[in-house]
Amino acid sequence: MTRNKVITFGEIMLRLSTPGHSRFSQAECFNATYGGGEANVAVSLAHFGVPAGHVTRFPDHEVGHAAALLLRKYGVDTSHIVYGGPRIGIYFLETGASVRPSKVVYDRAGSSFEHIQPGMLNWEQIFADASHFHWTGITPAISQGAADTCLEAIKTANRMGITVSGDLNYRKNLWQYGKKASEVMPELAAGCDLLFASRSDMEEILGGPVQDTEADRFVNTCKEMTRRCPRAQKIVNTRRSSVSASHNTLHAMLWDGEKLIKTGIQEINPIIDRIGGGDAFVAGYLYALRHYHTDKDVLEFALAASVLKHSIPGDANLVTAAEVEPIMRGETGGKLSR
Amino acid sequence: MTRNKVITFGEIMLRLSTPGHSRFSQAECFNATYGGGEANVAVSLAHFGVPAGHVTRFPDHEVGHAAALLLRKYGVDTSHIVYGGPRIGIYFLETGASVRPSKVVYDRAGSSFEHIQPGMLNWEQIFADASHFHWTGITPAISQGAADTCLEAIKTANRMGITVSGDLNYRKNLWQYGKKASEVMPELAAGCDLLFASRSDMEEILGGPVQDTEADRFVNTCKEMTRRCPRAQKIVNTRRSSVSASHNTLHAMLWDGEKLIKTGIQEINPIIDRIGGGDAFVAGYLYALRHYHTDKDVLEFALAASVLKHSIPGDANLVTAAEVEPIMRGETGGKLSR
Amino acid sequence: MTRNKVITFGEIMLRLSTPGHSRFSQAECFNATYGGGEANVAVSLAHFGVPAGHVTRFPDHEVGHAAALLLRKYGVDTSHIVYGGPRIGIYFLETGASVRPSKVVYDRAGSSFEHIQPGMLNWEQIFADASHFHWTGITPAISQGAADTCLEAIKTANRMGITVSGDLNYRKNLWQYGKKASEVMPELAAGCDLLFASRSDMEEILGGPVQDTEADRFVNTCKEMTRRCPRAQKIVNTRRSSVSASHNTLHAMLWDGEKLIKTGIQEINPIIDRIGGGDAFVAGYLYALRHYHTDKDVLEFALAASVLKHSIPGDANLVTAAEVEPIMRGETGGKLSR
Amino acid sequence: MTRNKVITFGEIMLRLSTPGHSRFSQAECFNATYGGGEANVAVSLAHFGVPAGHVTRFPDHEVGHAAALLLRKYGVDTSHIVYGGPRIGIYFLETGASVRPSKVVYDRAGSSFEHIQPGMLNWEQIFADASHFHWTGITPAISQGAADTCLEAIKTANRMGITVSGDLNYRKNLWQYGKKASEVMPELAAGCDLLFASRSDMEEILGGPVQDTEADRFVNTCKEMTRRCPRAQKIVNTRRSSVSASHNTLHAMLWDGEKLIKTGIQEINPIIDRIGGGDAFVAGYLYALRHYHTDKDVLEFALAASVLKHSIPGDANLVTAAEVEPIMRGETGGKLSR
Amino acid sequence: MTRNKVITFGEIMLRLSTPGHSRFSQAECFNATYGGGEANVAVSLAHFGVPAGHVTRFPDHEVGHAAALLLRKYGVDTSHIVYGGPRIGIYFLETGASVRPSKVVYDRAGSSFEHIQPGMLNWEQIFADASHFHWTGITPAISQGAADTCLEAIKTANRMGITVSGDLNYRKNLWQYGKKASEVMPELAAGCDLLFASRSDMEEILGGPVQDTEADRFVNTCKEMTRRCPRAQKIVNTRRSSVSASHNTLHAMLWDGEKLIKTGIQEINPIIDRIGGGDAFVAGYLYALRHYHTDKDVLEFALAASVLKHSIPGDANLVTAAEVEPIMRGETGGKLSR
Amino acid sequence: MTRNKVITFGEIMLRLSTPGHSRFSQAECFNATYGGGEANVAVSLAHFGVPAGHVTRFPDHEVGHAAALLLRKYGVDTSHIVYGGPRIGIYFLETGASVRPSKVVYDRAGSSFEHIQPGMLNWEQIFADASHFHWTGITPAISQGAADTCLEAIKTANRMGITVSGDLNYRKNLWQYGKKASEVMPELAAGCDLLFASRSDMEEILGGPVQDTEADRFVNTCKEMTRRCPRAQKIVNTRRSSVSASHNTLHAMLWDGEKLIKTGIQEINPIIDRIGGGDAFVAGYLYALRHYHTDKDVLEFALAASVLKHSIPGDANLVTAAEVEPIMRGETGGKLSR
Repeated sequence: MTRNKVITFGEIMLRLSTPGHSRFSQAECFNATYGGGEANVAVSLAHFGVPAGHVTRFPDHEVGHAAALLLRKYGVDTSHIVYGGPRIGIYFLETGASVRPSKVVYDRAGSSFEHIQPGMLNWEQIFADASHFHWTGITPAISQGAADTCLEAIKTANRMGITVSGDLNYRKNLWQYGKKASEVMPELAAGCDLLFASRSDMEEILGGPVQDTEADRFVNTCKEMTRRCPRAQKIVNTRRSSVSASHNTLHAMLWDGEKLIKTGIQEINPIIDRIGGGDAFVAGYLYALRHYHTDKDVLEFALAASVLKHSIPGDANLVTAAEVEPIMRGETGGKLSR
Repeated sequence: MTRNKVITFGEIMLRLSTPGHSRFSQAECFNATYGGGEANVAVSLAHFGVPAGHVTRFPDHEVGHAAALLLRKYGVDTSHIVYGGPRIGIYFLETGASVRPSKVVYDRAGSSFEHIQPGMLNWEQIFADASHFHWTGITPAISQGAADTCLEAIKTANRMGITVSGDLNYRKNLWQYGKKASEVMPELAAGCDLLFASRSDMEEILGGPVQDTEADRFVNTCKEMTRRCPRAQKIVNTRRSSVSASHNTLHAMLWDGEKLIKTGIQEINPIIDRIGGGDAFVAGYLYALRHYHTDKDVLEFALAASVLKHSIPGDANLVTAAEVEPIMRGETGGKLSR
Repeated sequence: MTRNKVITFGEIMLRLSTPGHSRFSQAECFNATYGGGEANVAVSLAHFGVPAGHVTRFPDHEVGHAAALLLRKYGVDTSHIVYGGPRIGIYFLETGASVRPSKVVYDRAGSSFEHIQPGMLNWEQIFADASHFHWTGITPAISQGAADTCLEAIKTANRMGITVSGDLNYRKNLWQYGKKASEVMPELAAGCDLLFASRSDMEEILGGPVQDTEADRFVNTCKEMTRRCPRAQKIVNTRRSSVSASHNTLHAMLWDGEKLIKTGIQEINPIIDRIGGGDAFVAGYLYALRHYHTDKDVLEFALAASVLKHSIPGDANLVTAAEVEPIMRGETGGKLSR
Repeated sequence: MTRNKVITFGEIMLRLSTPGHSRFSQAECFNATYGGGEANVAVSLAHFGVPAGHVTRFPDHEVGHAAALLLRKYGVDTSHIVYGGPRIGIYFLETGASVRPSKVVYDRAGSSFEHIQPGMLNWEQIFADASHFHWTGITPAISQGAADTCLEAIKTANRMGITVSGDLNYRKNLWQYGKKASEVMPELAAGCDLLFASRSDMEEILGGPVQDTEADRFVNTCKEMTRRCPRAQKIVNTRRSSVSASHNTLHAMLWDGEKLIKTGIQEINPIIDRIGGGDAFVAGYLYALRHYHTDKDVLEFALAASVLKHSIPGDANLVTAAEVEPIMRGETGGKLSR
Repeated sequence: MTRNKVITFGEIMLRLSTPGHSRFSQAECFNATYGGGEANVAVSLAHFGVPAGHVTRFPDHEVGHAAALLLRKYGVDTSHIVYGGPRIGIYFLETGASVRPSKVVYDRAGSSFEHIQPGMLNWEQIFADASHFHWTGITPAISQGAADTCLEAIKTANRMGITVSGDLNYRKNLWQYGKKASEVMPELAAGCDLLFASRSDMEEILGGPVQDTEADRFVNTCKEMTRRCPRAQKIVNTRRSSVSASHNTLHAMLWDGEKLIKTGIQEINPIIDRIGGGDAFVAGYLYALRHYHTDKDVLEFALAASVLKHSIPGDANLVTAAEVEPIMRGETGGKLSR
Repeated sequence: MTRNKVITFGEIMLRLSTPGHSRFSQAECFNATYGGGEANVAVSLAHFGVPAGHVTRFPDHEVGHAAALLLRKYGVDTSHIVYGGPRIGIYFLETGASVRPSKVVYDRAGSSFEHIQPGMLNWEQIFADASHFHWTGITPAISQGAADTCLEAIKTANRMGITVSGDLNYRKNLWQYGKKASEVMPELAAGCDLLFASRSDMEEILGGPVQDTEADRFVNTCKEMTRRCPRAQKIVNTRRSSVSASHNTLHAMLWDGEKLIKTGIQEINPIIDRIGGGDAFVAGYLYALRHYHTDKDVLEFALAASVLKHSIPGDANLVTAAEVEPIMRGETGGKLSR
C-alpha cells in the first residue's frame, strides 16, 4: 500500500450566505454549502490529484450527512468521519462590496465537534495510508476536547513518521473555554514539520512580541518560533492588502531557517469569494511540495492557487493544478478558454 | 388607554426549508423565514386587526435582528423583545408529498431563549395595555428558566386580571432538562382561563390516562383536567386525519364544561405548508371570541382559519378575517377573486 | 394572397405574479409575462398553425416593446400594433390553492390602450389578409374610445366580408367611464357571426333576465339574444364548477339556433394556472371550425384545449393541436411521452 | 413626550428591477421592493436609531399594504399613512454596467399620491412628537395637490417650531401639471432651515443662472438662494463623477453662509446599486447633525453614508452608524468582519 | 474481502428539466442533474446501505466529470468509470400536470457511452468485490458496442459466480443501429438469474406474443421466457395505471416459476417526479432480497420504494430503508416527522 | 419590394451557462439561451432597425423550435429556417472572473446543421428581398456539407448582386472533417466584398505568414489577402487586450486598400458577458455602413457597439443604435438614464 494520503482534521460548518450582496435583513433565502479551514485544504488537494481524507464529527442527522456528502462529492475520503453529538456549527455570511466588508456571524457553539474527545478517533487506522497530517489553530481554540484530540493526532503522526503541518491561524473570538493560545499551542506547534503563520499568529503563541534583533520583525519572530519548535524547518506566510472589499492584493513569504524568500504581489479584482483563500494557499503549498523543487516555485504555486480561489464561489478551491499553472506563470489575463 | 392587546411569549426559530420538495442532501439553498408557535398566533392576530405583541429573547446580532424585523413587518409589537445570549434556534424543514412525510430537524439547543430567566422581562410593563396572554407547552419544555419565566408571566397576568390561554402541545423530544411535563405543567395550566389541548396532551400533564367514566375519552379527560384547573372554562381541540402528506382533513371540538361541541370535517388538498396550522387555529379562536357569539361560530371560524393556513407558505397565517369568513360559510371552492 | 388570418384586438397587460403560492406581502419578486383575453386567443391560434395577428396600443418604452416581443416570439403578427400613450396596464396575481382563491389586483387605469381612439388603427389594412376578427366584452368596458374603436373594427369587418366573433365576457368592475353594458354592447354584438357568452353575460346586454318560456334558461336567453342579433348563428358557452382552487370541472355547450349541444364534463386536477382558460376555449373553437365538421367535435376540441390550458403557466395556451387531440379523445391519463 | 422624531413625506413607488444585468426584454421576472426619495431617508434614519415616520398615500389593496409593511419592517412609523385612490406608482429599473447606464422607466402617473389633497393629512397630529420635517422637490413636481399638501406641511412645521429640510432635486421629466418649478418651489424653499441642492437645482428655482460675482458659481448661487430664503442657514450638495456605470467618485460641499466647506473625494467601485445614494446622504447628514459638532464632520459622515449605500441592493441604506463610522475615518479597505 | 457489492452498468445522461411546469419554449433555465436507469439503481442501493458501484463511460471534460461527482456524492463507487469519446448524452424533460403528460426529448446519439467497445472495461477487476451485476435493456439498444460490452459483462459475471439481474425494458425509439431486440436480447437474458420485465418487454424479445395456454397472459409469457432462459428463476413486473399525469396507481407481481404473487395497489397523488420509478423498484427489490424472506415481502418493499420515489425530485430514489418500511406497512398518511 | 434585408447563415447552439461564477461541478441549473456567431449579427441588426433574417437548420423537436422562437422574439425573420436532422449543438459556459478565464465546453458534433447539404436551402428565394449576406469561418469548419452550402450561398449572392461579408474567424478545434482552412476558405473569401479578419485568421487561409515587406504585419497580410481576393475592398479587425477576465480593452482597425485606419482604445470593466463581442462589432459595422459616411465613423460605431455588448448577458447585442451613439461619442460614464 502506498502511503501518500494527506489527512486533515477540524470542524466543518454549514455556511449560509445571503444571495448576491443582500444584507441579512433582506435575505429570504440562504445559499448553503459546507466548509472549514482544514476540510477546504482536503478538497483542494483532492482536486490537485492528491489523495486526501478529512476527519471530523457531525451530528447523526440529515444535515450532518449532507455535509459529508459534499466532501465525498469533491473527492475527499469521508470514511473516518464519526457521527454523534448535538449539532453542526453554522456560519452566516453576507458578502460585501467596495467599501462594505463581508460579514460573518458565527453560530458554532455547542457543536458535535466541540464535544469531540480523545479516543473517539482511531488515529492509527486513519493514518494507515497517510504521509501527511494537517491541522489549524482553529481546532484547539474550540474546546479542551478538540485541543486534546488534535494533540493526540499530532503525537500519533510524529510516532508513525508522518509529516505534520499546522496553520497557526489565531482567532481571538474563539478561545472561550478557559485556556489561552499561549498555554495550548506551543505543544501542538512543537509537533509540526511545517508551519503556516503570520507574525501576529506566532506572537500569540509565544506570549507576546519578540525582541527585535533584526530589521525584519517577521524574521525575528520566525527565529524565536523555530527555537521553540525545532522540528519546524520552514515557516510560511501570506500577506493581504485590501484596496476594497472587491479588490485585494496578495503576496507570500517563507523563512527557510536561514533566509526569507518572497513572491511578487498579485492583484485580485474583483473578488468573488475570499473565504478559504488561506486554505487554498496551504493546499497549493502541500501539492507543490510534491511537484516543484525550489521553495520559490512552491511558494509561487501556492500563491497562484490562493489568488485563483478568490474567483470561486464557496469555501473550497475547486480548481485543478493545470488551472493554477498559468497564473503561476503570470498568465493572469483570463483569456476565454474554448 | 384601551387594554386590548394580546401578548404571546415563546421562542422564535430561524426556519430553513429546502426549495420545492428537495431532500436535505439535494439542497443548495434554503428558504429562510422565522416562526414559533406563539409568535405565529401574534402574527395571525395582527392580520385579523387585533393588537398583538410578542415577547422573546434573541441573540444581539444581525440574524436575531432580522427575526424581529419580520415580526414587525407583519404588524406585531416587538418593543419588549430582549437581546442577548448565544444564538437563535433553528429548524430545518423538508417538505414531503403524497406518501413522503415532511421532516423537521431541530437545532434549537443552547438558544438565547433557552437561557431566559425570570426577571429578564418586565411583565407588568409588557401587560400594561394587554387584555390577553397566550403561551404554549413548548416553552416550559425548553428549560427551567423558560418554564419559570412562563409561570412568572401567567401569575402576573392572573394578578392583573388579564385572561390567559395555553396551548398544552406536548412534544416528547423536548423536555430534556430533567423535569417531566407532569411536574411542571399543572401549575402553568392552572393559571389558564382557556386551554387548547388534545386528549394525549392532557394525559401527559395528568400523568397518564384518565379512568373511563363516559363513552367519549376526550370528554373524560376534559372533566379531569378542569377538575384540576378550575379556572379553565373551555378546552378546545383539533383533530387531523392524514390521507397523505398532501391531503389532510381537519375538524375541531370544544368542551364547555357541560357538553362537547363539534365542527364538521374540512378537506385540505393540496397542502402547501402545514406548519403552524394549530397556531392559526388558536389565533382564529382568539379573534372569533371577540366577534362571534356562540361557541360553534367561534370554533368554525378557528377551523376555517386553520384550513386556510395550510395554503400559505411559511409558519404564519397571513390572511385577513374577510378571507376566513367565506371558508367558514362553506365557500371552499376557491373561485378566482378579481 | 390567401385571406386566412385571424385578427384579435384588445388590451395586453403586464402580468406580475408572486412565485409559487406566496402572498403579495411575502413577494420579493414577481414572475413577469404579458397577456390579455384577445391576445391569448391569437397566441393559441398561432400555436395551432392558424395565421394570427394582434392589434393593440402600447406605450413607446422598453416595457411596452417587451410585451410586443413576447407576442412575436409566440408567432403572432405584431406589425399593426401602435405605440404611444402613457402606460401599459398591469395586473398582479397571487395563485391560490385548495380553499384559498387566486387573487387578481388590477392596475390598468390610464393605460395607452384606454386612450385609444377611432382612426388610430387602419382597419382596412389590418384586415387585408384576414378572414376572421375576434373581440371581447372587456374592450368596450375600458373606455369610450376603446368601445368606439372596437365598433369601427366590427363594422369594417362586416363590410369587408370578414367573419366576426365576440366573447361577451361581462366584468362589472370595469365599465367605469359612464356607460352601461346594455347601452354599448348590443350594437357590437349585432355585428357578430358567432358569440361566446354565458347566460349572465347576455342578460347584462339585454338589460336583465329574459322571460322564461322554456325549461332551460340558457336556451331562453340565447333565443332572445339571436332575435336581437340575427347575424349570430351560434352561441357557445363553458361552465366551470369549482371543487377547490386546485380542482375544477369544465363542460361546454352550444346553441345552434335550434338545439343545445353539450359536451361531457372534464376534470382538472391540479390546476397549474387557470388564467386564460376561456381564451383557450375560444382559440380551440376557432381552430376546430377549420378542421372538424360537426358542432359536437368543434365543441369537444375547444373544451379539451381549455382543459389543457389549466396545466400551462402563464396566460396563453402554448400547445399544439396534436397535444389537444388525445385529450379530446379522452386520453387524459397523462402518460409520459418519450 | 420627547419630540425627536423625523417625519418624511413623499411618494413611494413599487420598484421592479430586472435580475442581474438583464435588459427589460430579457426579464422573465422582476425583483420587487418599494422606495421613494423621502421614505429612503426615513428608513436610513431608523437604522441609525433616529425615530422616523413616513407619511404618504397608498391604494387600499394588497400591493399598497405590502409597501407599508416594508417600511414598517425597517423600523419606520407607518401609522399616519393614508389609504385610497387608484394605484401605486411603479418604476422599472435595469441595472447597467461599465459603459452601459442603468435605465429607469417610470410608470407613476395617476397614482394615489398624485391625487393627494390638502386636508387629507392631519399635520398637527403627525408632527406631535416630531422635531424635524423633510421633503424633496419631487413632491411638488407631481401634482398641484401634492405641492399644496407639501406647503401645508411646511407651514405647519414652521408654525410648530419644527425644523424643516428640503432636498430641492429638480427632475425635468416631472412637472407635467402646468406649473414650473420657479412658480412653485420658492415658497416651499422659503420655509426650510436647511437645503440640499446643486447649483442647477437652485437655478431652476431662481428662474435661471445667477450673475457671476465670485469665482465659484455654486457659491454665487447659494448667496442668491439664501437671500431669497433667509431661513435657510446652510446649503449642502454632493457631486458625482462617473468613470463608468460601475465606478463613480463622490464628494460633498456645504455653504454655511460665509464659506464653502468641502470633503475629500471618495471612490465607489464597484457600484452595486446607486439608486438612493442622495437620500442616504441626506439621512447621514440629519443623523450626524445630532452626533457631530462641526460642519466638516457632519458632511464627512453624510458622504461616507452615501458611499456605503452604493454597496446595498435596493433603494434604502440599510446600515448602522457603526458601519458608516469606519468609512468616515478612511477605513475603506473592506476587511472581512468576523 | 467481503464480496457483496452490486455493480450496475449503463449510460448516464445529463438531465435538463424546465422549472416547475414550464414548457420548453418558456424555459430560461434548466434544472440539471444526471441519471440513467442502471445508475439510479446504484444510487438507491447505496442509500439503502448496500455497497454499489457504477460503470460507464463519460467524455473527459468538466461536464462528464460533474456527472461522476454526483454519483460519488450519493455514495456510488465511481472508480471504474472510464473517460473518453465525444459527449455525454442529454435528455430534456418537461414536467406535465393533470391531463398534460410529461415530455422527454432525447439528445443521446453519439455519446461516449454509445462508442464503448468490449475490452475497454476490465470486468474481472470491476467484479472483484461484487456479488451481483445489474443491467437493463436500454444498454444493448444503444449500439453494437454497448450490446457487446454488456454481454461481455454478463458472461464474466456468470463465470465468476456473480448473480445477474436484467431489466428488459424495451424502448422502441432506441434500437437504431440495425439490430432488433429479438436478435440481441435473448443471449443477454439467458445469462440472468432474475428478470424485471413486462409482458410486452418479453414479447419483443421472444419475437411476438406467446400462444395462450392459460388465462393470464403475463404468466403465459413468463413460462415461455423461462423456457428460453432457464437460469432465470423469477420474473418481476410492475403495472402502472394513470389517472392523470399527477395521479397514478402502481402494483407489482412476480412469477416464481410456479405461481403469480401480487401486491396490493398503491395510490400516488400527487406525483413530484416519476422518472426513475422503475429503477427505484429494482433497487428496492435487490435490497429486500437481502433483508426479507418471502417473495411477497420483497415485492412489497420494492413497490413501497417505487411509490416513495415518485415524491423525490430527480432520477434517483434518495431514501433510506427506514423511510420505505412504513410505506410498506401501509403507513402512507405522510404524518409530519419531527 | 425594397431589397434591404441582411441574411445571415450559420449554426445556432443552445448555450447552457452556470449561474453567477459557479463552476460546472457546482451547477445545479444552467441558464439557457441560444446563439451563434452569425445569428448574433442578425439579432443585433434587427435591434438597429435593419431588416434581418437568419438561415439555419434545427432538429424538428421542442428544443429546436424554442431556438427559433428566441430569434423571432428579437425580430429576426425565421421563415427560411429548415427543420430536420438529429440534434441542436450545445455549448456549456462557465463565466470566469479576475484571473480565472471563462471556459467553454462544446458539444456540437452531430448537429442538424452539421448534416446540412447544398440544395436544402432555396437561396434565390431567401435572397429575394436581401441586399447583404453575411457568413463566418465557423460554418465551413463544421462539415463538408456546411462548407458547400456556404459556397452555394456566396455564389448565389454574387450572381444576384448582393454584397457579401465574411468573418474569417479561425477556430483550430473545429476543422475535424478532413479539410484544412487553407483548402476551403480561399474560394469562400474570394466571393466577399468585405472581410472581418485578424492577421492570424488570414494566415490560416493563406497557408502561413506573409513575407514582411512593410513595418506593419497586419497591413502586409491584408495586401496579400486582397491580392488573392480582389473583390474585397476592405479588411476590418478588432484587437482585444486582457487585463483580466473581468477587464479588457478593445480597439479596431480597417485596411481600405491604401491605408490603415484605427480607432482609439476602449476600456471594458467589468465585463458582464464577452461572448458575441466580435459579432456585435460586425453588426455595428454593417449598420454603420448605412448611416455613417467615413470609414472612421463606421469603425468607431462598430467598436462602441462591441464594447456595449460586453455589458449584456447572453450572446446577442440587445441594444439600439441610440444606445451605441453616446459610447461612440465618448460618453462612457454610464450616467443613470431616467
